[in-house]
Amino acid sequence: MAETPPPRVMLSHPMLSPIEPALQAEGWRVARAWELAEADRLDVRAILHAGEVPLTPALLETLPELGLVACVSVGYDGVDVAWCRARGIEVTHAAGLNAEDVAEHALGLVIAAWRDIVAGDRMIREGLWTAKQGFAVRPSLRGRRFGVVGLGAIGQASAARAQAFGVDIAWWGPRPKPQAPWPRRDSLIDLAAWSDILLIASRATAENRGLISREVIEAVGPRGLIVNVARGALVDEDALIAALRDGRLGRAALDVFQTEPTPAARWAGIPNLVLTPHSAGGTRDGIPRMVGQAVENVRGFLAGQSLLSPVQEA
Amino acid sequence: MAETPPPRVMLSHPMLSPIEPALQAEGWRVARAWELAEADRLDVRAILHAGEVPLTPALLETLPELGLVACVSVGYDGVDVAWCRARGIEVTHAAGLNAEDVAEHALGLVIAAWRDIVAGDRMIREGLWTAKQGFAVRPSLRGRRFGVVGLGAIGQASAARAQAFGVDIAWWGPRPKPQAPWPRRDSLIDLAAWSDILLIASRATAENRGLISREVIEAVGPRGLIVNVARGALVDEDALIAALRDGRLGRAALDVFQTEPTPAARWAGIPNLVLTPHSAGGTRDGIPRMVGQAVENVRGFLAGQSLLSPVQEA
Repeated sequence: MAETPPPRVMLSHPMLSPIEPALQAEGWRVARAWELAEADRLDVRAILHAGEVPLTPALLETLPELGLVACVSVGYDGVDVAWCRARGIEVTHAAGLNAEDVAEHALGLVIAAWRDIVAGDRMIREGLWTAKQGFAVRPSLRGRRFGVVGLGAIGQASAARAQAFGVDIAWWGPRPKPQAPWPRRDSLIDLAAWSDILLIASRATAENRGLISREVIEAVGPRGLIVNVARGALVDEDALIAALRDGRLGRAALDVFQTEPTPAARWAGIPNLVLTPHSAGGTRDGIPRMVGQAVENVRGFLAGQSLLSPVQEA
Repeated sequence: MAETPPPRVMLSHPMLSPIEPALQAEGWRVARAWELAEADRLDVRAILHAGEVPLTPALLETLPELGLVACVSVGYDGVDVAWCRARGIEVTHAAGLNAEDVAEHALGLVIAAWRDIVAGDRMIREGLWTAKQGFAVRPSLRGRRFGVVGLGAIGQASAARAQAFGVDIAWWGPRPKPQAPWPRRDSLIDLAAWSDILLIASRATAENRGLISREVIEAVGPRGLIVNVARGALVDEDALIAALRDGRLGRAALDVFQTEPTPAARWAGIPNLVLTPHSAGGTRDGIPRMVGQAVENVRGFLAGQSLLSPVQEA
């Protein structure tokens, strides 16, 4: 009698390579999507996936035994969940595991941009701090209006931290949340017009692409700051760049981009802008928790048990 | 009968030039220390001063009618208060008026340094964010140990904000504060060894120069971060630079320096370092409050009334 070979699981992207040893430690055979042998497609049962990367039906259709896409990330905007479920493929994600990490980075971006910390560092290093030339004085963060787009786990964790800085807080999202401790504005444009600082913390979906439109950007205005720690697709990036260039928007701080990695040339010469390389959600503390939960989801699936953190979607 | 001329007040440094119109609006004659006519020395009654700038007895002795040094700043480390008082010269400062502004900048420096926000911005702009080369993963701020040196108004406002990020907080200062909501460590070196992040928020005096010594810096250690928003003189800057260079200290973020403006060349090639140009305490909201209080002190002094915010010193 032939022995049953260990189950095969696939990594969808090279950025996930560091977790390969953890999968091998489970006794699974590991396949890599970027160097996949034809024969190996036939028995891939689960994919470990970085949820923001597009996972095309064209690829998924070549995997007859696939039953699970386990996202290591909180977001799963690269996965067509409805398409998967219609074919009996489950989708899981890292539910709520990095909200605190994203929130602390979000506040760091807010203060770094609002109080000119990145600009101040550059000024000193370029030798521009002299007895005659000091820094341009900025307003306090305290007392400003802090608007949050999307009051999920990240939005709430960010607002709770912002509160300690003495800002006024309001939010908008598509659904009212009667339990929320902060007032919901009637519309996104209303929130943007009210806000000195607008923090984007929404889940990205097929429906809300470009939600932060030219109109929303202009409503935040010449003295305002937009911070995005959610997904690049939520912002009309060309409109944001144009508004920064001609002063219709005061400032921006971005951790996420339309395409990632974003090219340096795209941002050259644009004023009042802080950029980080999609680093808000991945910390030495958070990544093992997220990978652990994804592996746990694969283990449960292979054992025929219920999933730990399936995507909850209508 | 000759009319009494309006009182003469003096600005001590060119950086205070922007407040000249406010003094003229009071009807005072304004003298400038950096272009002072001999005859004008004779009736200078008050000096508007930036407290961190040395105000030498050699200058003060040439001003026979001087009765007040009104610091626009919170700090007054450039003023020899005992020398002044022995000669009947009062000293006032901006008591507690910018603690919140300094605290928000302090937390901005903490997060920008701890979560690699300044380094991330530089990485993207230098084209170093590529599909193969991502960011170096950092620990969360949450759960770390946050030590505060000096629990005055700035230390307390910083700790209150840090608390919202889920850090453990402890402090050290020369005097116990039984009302403080956070535990005091037995010594500075004990606090430094305990801390992942050490925030310097002490008043600078003649006695605590170089308080943050090589030993304290090494106690914070290779994975630790030192943030200084107080005064450059509190830190042994050469020891700090050496420790950053060879990895005995992990990171630093500095808003204040041994000499200001600090020259760019001094910081070239030193890793894991965020610099801002003494901008923590001066905001568009705070500066008018501080200038207003200093002008109020001069007005009260000239009218023979009690002073609003005299320096409280043993």
